[in-house]
Amino acid sequence: MSSTPQLRSLSIDNINPHVKEAKYAVRGELAVRAETYRSQLAQQQGGSLPFDKIISANIGNPQQLDQKPITFFRQVLSLLEYPPLLEKEDVLLNNLGYQQDVLERARFLLKECRSIGAYSHSQGVPGIRNSVARFIAERDGHPSDPGSVYLSGGASSGVNTLLHIICSTPETGVLVPIPQYPLYTATLAVLNARCVPYYLDENHAWGTDMDAIRSALAKAKAEGTDVRAIAVINPGNPTGASLGEEDIKNVLEIAANEKLVVIADEVYQTNVFLGKFHSFKKVLRDLQSAEPGKYDNIELGSLHSVSKGMVGECGHRGGYFELVGFDPKVVEQIYKFVSISLCPPVIGQCLVELMVNPPREGEPSHALYKQEYNDIFAGLKARATALYEAFKEMEGVECQEPQGSMYLFPTIRLPPCAVEAAAKEGRKADEFYCFRLLDSTGVCVVPGSGFGQKEGTLHFRTTFLAPGTEWVGRIVKFHKEFMDEFKG
Amino acid sequence: MSSTPQLRSLSIDNINPHVKEAKYAVRGELAVRAETYRSQLAQQQGGSLPFDKIISANIGNPQQLDQKPITFFRQVLSLLEYPPLLEKEDVLLNNLGYQQDVLERARFLLKECRSIGAYSHSQGVPGIRNSVARFIAERDGHPSDPGSVYLSGGASSGVNTLLHIICSTPETGVLVPIPQYPLYTATLAVLNARCVPYYLDENHAWGTDMDAIRSALAKAKAEGTDVRAIAVINPGNPTGASLGEEDIKNVLEIAANEKLVVIADEVYQTNVFLGKFHSFKKVLRDLQSAEPGKYDNIELGSLHSVSKGMVGECGHRGGYFELVGFDPKVVEQIYKFVSISLCPPVIGQCLVELMVNPPREGEPSHALYKQEYNDIFAGLKARATALYEAFKEMEGVECQEPQGSMYLFPTIRLPPCAVEAAAKEGRKADEFYCFRLLDSTGVCVVPGSGFGQKEGTLHFRTTFLAPGTEWVGRIVKFHKEFMDEFKG
Repeated sequence: MSSTPQLRSLSIDNINPHVKEAKYAVRGELAVRAETYRSQLAQQQGGSLPFDKIISANIGNPQQLDQKPITFFRQVLSLLEYPPLLEKEDVLLNNLGYQQDVLERARFLLKECRSIGAYSHSQGVPGIRNSVARFIAERDGHPSDPGSVYLSGGASSGVNTLLHIICSTPETGVLVPIPQYPLYTATLAVLNARCVPYYLDENHAWGTDMDAIRSALAKAKAEGTDVRAIAVINPGNPTGASLGEEDIKNVLEIAANEKLVVIADEVYQTNVFLGKFHSFKKVLRDLQSAEPGKYDNIELGSLHSVSKGMVGECGHRGGYFELVGFDPKVVEQIYKFVSISLCPPVIGQCLVELMVNPPREGEPSHALYKQEYNDIFAGLKARATALYEAFKEMEGVECQEPQGSMYLFPTIRLPPCAVEAAAKEGRKADEFYCFRLLDSTGVCVVPGSGFGQKEGTLHFRTTFLAPGTEWVGRIVKFHKEFMDEFKG
Repeated sequence: MSSTPQLRSLSIDNINPHVKEAKYAVRGELAVRAETYRSQLAQQQGGSLPFDKIISANIGNPQQLDQKPITFFRQVLSLLEYPPLLEKEDVLLNNLGYQQDVLERARFLLKECRSIGAYSHSQGVPGIRNSVARFIAERDGHPSDPGSVYLSGGASSGVNTLLHIICSTPETGVLVPIPQYPLYTATLAVLNARCVPYYLDENHAWGTDMDAIRSALAKAKAEGTDVRAIAVINPGNPTGASLGEEDIKNVLEIAANEKLVVIADEVYQTNVFLGKFHSFKKVLRDLQSAEPGKYDNIELGSLHSVSKGMVGECGHRGGYFELVGFDPKVVEQIYKFVSISLCPPVIGQCLVELMVNPPREGEPSHALYKQEYNDIFAGLKARATALYEAFKEMEGVECQEPQGSMYLFPTIRLPPCAVEAAAKEGRKADEFYCFRLLDSTGVCVVPGSGFGQKEGTLHFRTTFLAPGTEWVGRIVKFHKEFMDEFKG
């Protein structure tokens, strides 16, 4: 039987154009090629490759590299997964090294969840939301309402929820820092809303530049954009900047005057090497106490996650966001929206509990927890510094001192011949550089164009999670050879 | 300092109108009221309530009720959460009742994931996708390509992905069965696309009525709707129908002729009490083998989940979808879209592995697995039958014989006075009935209007997951009193 050629329903020309517009370089072509090399190496078919290992420095994925999970957290989770273990208390305590507080926490969480295999309340398990509210209150010195806490599948899903509510027309705009974590631009593209870029100030440690925000806002308004929110990533991704209190006050001032929802992405709040983390919630409450009434119109959604910090549990997809100052009728819509996805992963919710309520001084698991936590912190700081020192020695590379988060975002100045060679391949120069780096060394980083950068500048983002310094040496060697090749 | 009233950025009048339009009754006002009662009872403040327990029959959430997790699954997951247990092999085997195959599977999964705390490939862990493909091949007798399998956070997230790709303009339409699980209408509303309802045939066990599909399609086209896909839920939610092979062939025939993507929601594939489950993939491949060329244009996305069946692990948010016949350029966009959310929960992915690759005959955990599986199946069937028998005795209630899934969806005929009383409260009559049921008995079900029903008919959906029969008695007694009260 012969057949006439038949067309499918879907082609690249008729699917959702807004999905097509979205860009997400962190897991794009470079990452795909790195995975191909990785499986070639795993299947011993990598004989022709000039390296024997892939270093995934493209994504903040601590446990894919060196970071060990916190023992207390994982012991509790093992009991949640198989509660009959709790009936073998003597074996747990005497043969397996579990402490009594591990058992207690598991019993508490099982009481709250009934079973981690059951859907929870769409907003998250109530007892865990109570713990989050206590954590926030303790961190900020201002109360937090568990009714305003939403547990989420990582912070990404929280950002997705907030942007879904805010973006109401194709003219809706959201101020997004550039460079930025591409979740923001990608989600705005999918929602057919406008990204209103405001450039961070590389010359001032990637700080938030109020003039840049004001002029971005004015320009957007002049173009008919209805700017409704401002996103701030603090500590910064990809920049590694850690904002001072004054910067945050200034952002809140603009938000109050311009009626902007503040989306505070604070997932790196414990990854701070220089200075101190200031939460938007605390600074807002301080301002509200100092000048009652003046900041009451501010709507703040602040996000946190189990994926980063010393927890590093990306794969568990846990996080939360806290809403402050939202209209109750809007909150009802947020609840309905999250309920369509039923509930965040319950085991991820339990990790949120453990993150916000770790073993306290005097409890049996505290000493080990503290030691593990401090070791991870010290390791990250040491590696950030080593990488920074290496970048300082590289020709045409300039990098801000590491302040926070998990990334360095150096500027690279490439010779004109390299820019030309890139153009011949139809690539941006930073992309070309990153592909060459991957092909030569197995080190995968992300070109600055994946995050946005000022016209005429080039960067790349690298995590400093990979253990050892051998891979840093590979980058240094590659860079020298690359520069020599294209110096012309 | 005095303050002038300041407006917020967001109000119910200026947020995303498409989110506002979405309806999701399964977790709506009734469910919220049930949760309020539950916490009153928990805090011993329920003295005035005429019941001492809430029965959540509104949502297919097996482990919130009676269903126990499968031992093999949870033993493996406990080791994944705390891998140092694997170093205590003797304790696991001799003191804790773990079998050797539990340890082997955990080692396999740790090798594949590295750590379950690490992000995986956005499409899912490659080794787990291989297992899914083998499962599909074994189930259907036709090969499956692991490259076409996408692991997802429950089937809901898979449906969300497919609809995001398909819905390109406000005129895009998707054929959705009515009654339906409201994920479909809610997601289409959020995406500003059109739901094209086709009514299922209650008089033929809620079967798929080809004439209804054809006339829905013709009507939609006449109204300028660009119909691009058809969703089929088999076994049915909320109807409990299980489709025969002929029904599926007919749907595929229409899909081939009309160029419709087929979205086959097969999450209840093991919850079948009458007849046999036929997958869309198998029937499609059979048709393609019988008449080469004729069905080559069909695009099929079929979904499965760890939430239902004898697994019942809703809280773990695991699932997958398989793509067949999609254009590679479209597939690239699907990959990019899922990569924006980074990856599905890794422990949920591991549960997918366990579901599709359970202990085999001759392996040490097989006997217990088989027994647990069969007991759950028998319990569900017995409860479905008990509920069905009770409905048969109730005045004005008619119910189809249970065939599959976790639900019964009886018709209720209410006296005119009840309809009037409902109208006075501004409620639909079925909603009014369900609120009365909850207020009197603590049993929470969902009104038919939450799923869609033919004009002039009334239904409710109840799960048959709650243990025992006492709660069924409560419904019967309530119904009699309700009918007596409103008979007039």
